[in-house]
Amino acid sequence: MSLLDICEKAPPTVLIDATAADAIRAMLEYHVGAVTVVDSNRVVAGIFTERDVMRRLSLSGRDPHTTMVRDVMTTPVELATVLTSEAEALATMLERHYRHLPIVDSEGRLIGMLAMRHVLEARIDELVRQLERARTARIM
Amino acid sequence: MSLLDICEKAPPTVLIDATAADAIRAMLEYHVGAVTVVDSNRVVAGIFTERDVMRRLSLSGRDPHTTMVRDVMTTPVELATVLTSEAEALATMLERHYRHLPIVDSEGRLIGMLAMRHVLEARIDELVRQLERARTARIM
Repeated sequence: MSLLDICEKAPPTVLIDATAADAIRAMLEYHVGAVTVVDSNRVVAGIFTERDVMRRLSLSGRDPHTTMVRDVMTTPVELATVLTSEAEALATMLERHYRHLPIVDSEGRLIGMLAMRHVLEARIDELVRQLERARTARIM
Repeated sequence: MSLLDICEKAPPTVLIDATAADAIRAMLEYHVGAVTVVDSNRVVAGIFTERDVMRRLSLSGRDPHTTMVRDVMTTPVELATVLTSEAEALATMLERHYRHLPIVDSEGRLIGMLAMRHVLEARIDELVRQLERARTARIM
């Protein structure tokens, strides 16, 4: 199973020339904790998360309506591709304390957003399937 | 297994007369997405989350250093007790779109903080145990 099967395939994005307020509104509207910042070719430039709001905006007194998202986003950003395994993605997220990992194609263009929760839920689904197989095998 | 076995038993808190900036600093320091707001008897008054930062602070232009956390926290708050089952806690979190659930004693005092991730990880641990039992039974 590819990461593309378990990730969000239509994640919200904001353009590199958006304000931080635009990015916050996108996160609130889509009920997500992070948006990917992309250029006009959908190539990933960075990621802006709830943690960036707290760390780089709230306490500094910067006005999100006049602050550009590119000045407060996290970049460079860890990326996954369709070739990244679930285990590799989980290891990166745990090691770097990331809850989100953008998935890109070979040109660096965004094709999905992986959240920690997707990985844990996929692991639960897989374990349930294995358990059913193990129990069926026992009965037969 | 009780929720107390899987939750964070020493979660960060802020007092009801703290500022929003105090609460944000606590979240950043402890690497968590929510702090419980308590009175001097540790009775839960509300919860303040990353989402509250975005929704009630960032876009409004309020200064977190002069805004009281009690004016921007979420209250009343859904609570769990040691008698709440994992399934009940998960259902509440999914239904209300909450990622955190404070756990209180019979007096309403905070004894732990349950995050969605704790519930998913506990489910994975339990499935792994069941799978090992099922496979062992097959071999025997």
